Amino acid sequence: MTKEVNVALIGTRFMGRAHSNAWSNVRKNFKLDIKPVLKVACGRKIDDHINEFAKQYGWEAVSDQWEDVVSDPNIDIVDISASNKSHFPIAMAAVKAGKHVICEKPLAMTAEEAKAMYLAAKEAGVVHMTAFNYRQVPALIYAKQLIDEGKIGDIRHFDAVYYQDWLINPDFPFVWRNDIVEAGSGAHGDMNAHLVDLARYLVGEVADVSGIQNIFVKERPVRDGSGTREVTADDATSFLCHFNNGALGSFISTRFATGRKNYLKFELFGSKGSLKFELERLNELQYFSTEDDQGDQGYRTILMTESVHPFISAWWPPGHIIGWEHTFIHEVKLFLDAIALKSDLSPSFYDGWRTQSVMDAVVKSSEKKTWVKVEA
Amino acid sequence: MTKEVNVALIGTRFMGRAHSNAWSNVRKNFKLDIKPVLKVACGRKIDDHINEFAKQYGWEAVSDQWEDVVSDPNIDIVDISASNKSHFPIAMAAVKAGKHVICEKPLAMTAEEAKAMYLAAKEAGVVHMTAFNYRQVPALIYAKQLIDEGKIGDIRHFDAVYYQDWLINPDFPFVWRNDIVEAGSGAHGDMNAHLVDLARYLVGEVADVSGIQNIFVKERPVRDGSGTREVTADDATSFLCHFNNGALGSFISTRFATGRKNYLKFELFGSKGSLKFELERLNELQYFSTEDDQGDQGYRTILMTESVHPFISAWWPPGHIIGWEHTFIHEVKLFLDAIALKSDLSPSFYDGWRTQSVMDAVVKSSEKKTWVKVEA
Amino acid sequence: MTKEVNVALIGTRFMGRAHSNAWSNVRKNFKLDIKPVLKVACGRKIDDHINEFAKQYGWEAVSDQWEDVVSDPNIDIVDISASNKSHFPIAMAAVKAGKHVICEKPLAMTAEEAKAMYLAAKEAGVVHMTAFNYRQVPALIYAKQLIDEGKIGDIRHFDAVYYQDWLINPDFPFVWRNDIVEAGSGAHGDMNAHLVDLARYLVGEVADVSGIQNIFVKERPVRDGSGTREVTADDATSFLCHFNNGALGSFISTRFATGRKNYLKFELFGSKGSLKFELERLNELQYFSTEDDQGDQGYRTILMTESVHPFISAWWPPGHIIGWEHTFIHEVKLFLDAIALKSDLSPSFYDGWRTQSVMDAVVKSSEKKTWVKVEA
Amino acid sequence: MTKEVNVALIGTRFMGRAHSNAWSNVRKNFKLDIKPVLKVACGRKIDDHINEFAKQYGWEAVSDQWEDVVSDPNIDIVDISASNKSHFPIAMAAVKAGKHVICEKPLAMTAEEAKAMYLAAKEAGVVHMTAFNYRQVPALIYAKQLIDEGKIGDIRHFDAVYYQDWLINPDFPFVWRNDIVEAGSGAHGDMNAHLVDLARYLVGEVADVSGIQNIFVKERPVRDGSGTREVTADDATSFLCHFNNGALGSFISTRFATGRKNYLKFELFGSKGSLKFELERLNELQYFSTEDDQGDQGYRTILMTESVHPFISAWWPPGHIIGWEHTFIHEVKLFLDAIALKSDLSPSFYDGWRTQSVMDAVVKSSEKKTWVKVEA
Repeated sequence: MTKEVNVALIGTRFMGRAHSNAWSNVRKNFKLDIKPVLKVACGRKIDDHINEFAKQYGWEAVSDQWEDVVSDPNIDIVDISASNKSHFPIAMAAVKAGKHVICEKPLAMTAEEAKAMYLAAKEAGVVHMTAFNYRQVPALIYAKQLIDEGKIGDIRHFDAVYYQDWLINPDFPFVWRNDIVEAGSGAHGDMNAHLVDLARYLVGEVADVSGIQNIFVKERPVRDGSGTREVTADDATSFLCHFNNGALGSFISTRFATGRKNYLKFELFGSKGSLKFELERLNELQYFSTEDDQGDQGYRTILMTESVHPFISAWWPPGHIIGWEHTFIHEVKLFLDAIALKSDLSPSFYDGWRTQSVMDAVVKSSEKKTWVKVEA
Repeated sequence: MTKEVNVALIGTRFMGRAHSNAWSNVRKNFKLDIKPVLKVACGRKIDDHINEFAKQYGWEAVSDQWEDVVSDPNIDIVDISASNKSHFPIAMAAVKAGKHVICEKPLAMTAEEAKAMYLAAKEAGVVHMTAFNYRQVPALIYAKQLIDEGKIGDIRHFDAVYYQDWLINPDFPFVWRNDIVEAGSGAHGDMNAHLVDLARYLVGEVADVSGIQNIFVKERPVRDGSGTREVTADDATSFLCHFNNGALGSFISTRFATGRKNYLKFELFGSKGSLKFELERLNELQYFSTEDDQGDQGYRTILMTESVHPFISAWWPPGHIIGWEHTFIHEVKLFLDAIALKSDLSPSFYDGWRTQSVMDAVVKSSEKKTWVKVEA
Repeated sequence: MTKEVNVALIGTRFMGRAHSNAWSNVRKNFKLDIKPVLKVACGRKIDDHINEFAKQYGWEAVSDQWEDVVSDPNIDIVDISASNKSHFPIAMAAVKAGKHVICEKPLAMTAEEAKAMYLAAKEAGVVHMTAFNYRQVPALIYAKQLIDEGKIGDIRHFDAVYYQDWLINPDFPFVWRNDIVEAGSGAHGDMNAHLVDLARYLVGEVADVSGIQNIFVKERPVRDGSGTREVTADDATSFLCHFNNGALGSFISTRFATGRKNYLKFELFGSKGSLKFELERLNELQYFSTEDDQGDQGYRTILMTESVHPFISAWWPPGHIIGWEHTFIHEVKLFLDAIALKSDLSPSFYDGWRTQSVMDAVVKSSEKKTWVKVEA
Repeated sequence: MTKEVNVALIGTRFMGRAHSNAWSNVRKNFKLDIKPVLKVACGRKIDDHINEFAKQYGWEAVSDQWEDVVSDPNIDIVDISASNKSHFPIAMAAVKAGKHVICEKPLAMTAEEAKAMYLAAKEAGVVHMTAFNYRQVPALIYAKQLIDEGKIGDIRHFDAVYYQDWLINPDFPFVWRNDIVEAGSGAHGDMNAHLVDLARYLVGEVADVSGIQNIFVKERPVRDGSGTREVTADDATSFLCHFNNGALGSFISTRFATGRKNYLKFELFGSKGSLKFELERLNELQYFSTEDDQGDQGYRTILMTESVHPFISAWWPPGHIIGWEHTFIHEVKLFLDAIALKSDLSPSFYDGWRTQSVMDAVVKSSEKKTWVKVEA
């Protein structure tokens, strides 16, 4: 018989919507022995927004008291889609209360926090996940398979960018993401976190880094027209790295890449093949193989909609593409599987912590203007 | 207060899934004054499949008696996702019973049937829709806007292809789509129907046609291993046409386009600009404008994820793409809007009929090996 | 020892330039036992243009008397780059005088003329070539190799377009190419001739055709401002065909494809693989193989600059692309090889004739509005 | 009357061929008041290779004594296409002898050498050019124009890669380019030199850098089978930089980018627009403008073959692409123009020196593992 698990969502904005959509749709497409019940959505206050939000996605109740929610004995799963700053206290409380926890990235404000979260979750024996949803893009799981099968050979380079452009206008008003205290970081935490997680997933651990952080527009108007406010979070952060296995890495994240909306891209080069991926065409993977006949070699555009591709048999026939939101459905599916099987999963809090260690090293490197080793 | 409308779905296979997903998700993303209730899913028999299907998508009941379902006074909307042959009898019965009807394409087996369905629906005063879902791709609605704004100028050419490859292997077994009696037609009805509808939407009415139909593999093995069966439905149908406004058209639909999975593509050329669209990258529209500075002219790849783009404000921020299934959610949204507003919509049964008239002319042309005028 | 052959060029405009460039450069990159001497360039009159032209490319003399030139005993090769109308008389005279002849396409104004030219050249035992230069694109020779090796399997579809846009503006003045008497045809002879030759090269002979020809802008201003003149040559010609081997073909040539400059493109689908080519990216060939691992299948973009690719070892290292003009150098190289080896070559006048037969059938089909068999 | 200038070429390998092709073709396509005479080609020894080479390209004589050649009073121009090591002595001698000098990149083995060359050339009053041929790609000159016209706005990012893959096989034998003493550097000098020159051209001067250099395969077999030899030149060099104007830069050059043959690519982001360029598609420029209508914004693929595009009126009609070798013809054209006009040109030895300063700073940064300021 299907077991029900009660979910509490903390955070009802962008990520809250994406997660709600996933919770409410996962069983339409995947056969699961476990059924998530959308029990309560928790925000900062009870208002029209949260009531409307709950009705839209089918949350049975609303709350503005996350402490109560995470300690409620009826709740099995806590989904943390709230602000970066709140991840640590909520996750620690949830884990302590024995809840399974899925938490948005970046997992914490510092590697230290992230490590504590990981250790607490491990100690508590709960299922824990860092919501690096891009690991659930079929093309990227398939990329990992190609690497694991040896089709790419020894990896030499991982060159990644994450380009957005929503801050290029200096008159764009100050938002919480421009505030280092509120957001923890700017482009770095929001965007490089994804790149670093993918790098660890596909290539391996990062040894050391040399980075720069930059704020192009130092002051921005505040929305109420009362003047300007100093931007303290990075507009752009780039870094170079060595991986433990000898590969070289290059990472660029910026909100000043005019014309690029949500353009995460990487090229990965190995001794036997290479891969290229672009998030705005997430149904495609570019693959070059040196094992093709000599004259026939070239980058293949694999349309990632065949039933042999990861997760795809749950969706539509070949050539019928999926969207960005599907990555969250896959994520929730994995999370529920782990609960059903009482198994570990990846990306866990461990991965959130390891990524945060790389991120912290980059910040330190940028401040010191030198190479910095990633702390183990 | 939100009004509830009860939906009956006839057909629980591929299209039944896509429609169910739409009915169950439309209100998560769109604010509607009307709420669809998934009342009953109707198939050919009551079995594990239909029970599982109903549970997955939340249909309250199941049935194997479509006649009862469409005459049930509790039902407001009949959604016909069943086989092509059944569209006519079900739609006629539903319309007669005063139901609003959304029907998959091709609307009917012949233009004559389609016309009767249109006239009956009009007479009954119900909302009627032919489910040409590609009209609900944001890029294509935007294409239509550019044309209507005069940015493309006088249209000269509409060159469209619809490529699939699932029949290239001669050992692929005989399926109902290979049977002209069951399916009405092959690639023509399944794929050209979409192209013709888009052509009418973007360019205008078709005047006359010259076409060819072809069966490349004449016999296919039957699945039970008992021998082979003659293929009677077309593997490929191509045709040329004149539009009433003087534009020329070219259409190719085939299931023998090796490497193409669901590749609907067109190029549309006007006196001031041009457009290109590919379904497997449905979040993009290519646009060329002669009004750009002379040296700067080129095809623009517009990523159709800005809030100013059709339907997009309901979804995600820029750069976060939608999938194929979203077109059905948009479709259902329009259908419900029309019911709420008691208004007409397009593509209606009228559009289903007009498309069928073009389709029939192509078949006749292929048989007679001459040009055939499209019947008004 | 290297043998010298004396070349006479008839026609000093666009094609004359491309051919002159080829004659003067062929031995820089290819080792040949034969050396072309640029003896005389012949135009309609002796003026500054032709004198300047001869100096630029190194023609030793100029002439305005093609009859004298082609009968000059010193001349070994006649290169006909003059207007379509003049191909027949010049080629017949040249062949009669025992010259080797390379002639621009379309070979003649009619299939009848072309056949006579072919028979005369054969009778005379001279080397004869129709200058379908796109057969000398490395990517297309490679495509032919893949087909001949069986990698594509049985060909099902050849869908080709040739798009240009230089006539879209109705105010663009009348030119000789708009005059059916002068040019023989419009887009059809200029552009479809290339497509048909490639189709014959890659797929095989055409059995029958159904076509349409269209003039979008009926009158154009004459350049001297004295009024307008009626356009009599086709702006666009499209046709469908059956090939003898059962494949289907689709061809579109138009000068009203806004935004496309010299965009010859085709997709060719076979039972085992497929090919795609675009002339504006002539250094690339797209290749899809069903023999790749199931999950890894996709169109490969082969960059046609490896030493194993046709003609490329004569040029630059991998990744260093060649241009459009190189096709003429390859063409001249083949022509000189055939003279040196006293061998046949392809595309010969035979190919020019066979293409012209297809072209004529299309014109007839367009007039009669019915399918027309290609004459053998 | 046309003035003749006598050219001496030093170096007859890859670059010698590209330059010879340029000298011999420049007047076919460009009207010049000055005529280069291919006087002497100079190599390391007189052998079949150089004799054949001279015959191919039309060099009147050959030599193995560069000292004699550069001091020959008959010579006006010295073209240095020889090994990196030889640039300094040859250029210094040539300049001293009052010759105009065009020298391949990297200009010298160190910035110090390069500076001396620049000062000597300036002092001598001769025309001097560093052969950064990619500055003569029409798309890149056009990119510069767009920037200068203000269409891109304030530049924020310049992210460039130069990918090749000819060293990925560890069994590929040791070549002179693997030897730091012979080559001066590996990927860095060969490939980053191009990127840095383009960066200076398009963005401006570089302030400081942080780089890494890497050798993936430490030993390679020697060709004669006698064992292996240590690789001392870098396989890959990457660096980050600040530009003086506040923009950030990222540079990656590697010979281990499997599948990439000669893939120089950059993306340049400004406050009003952005540009993207790929060398293997050098006839195209990608341009995004924030000044397009909001819903219509997208990267335009500009096909750089219009007569309004730089250098193109000398070539072919729209849509007829040029190749890699054309950049050298453009280069030589500019050089001859500067001689005719007795004017300065860019990229001169000054540019060669400034680039070398950046290059040296990267090497130092890699050694010291810290940021290094570029010396003025």
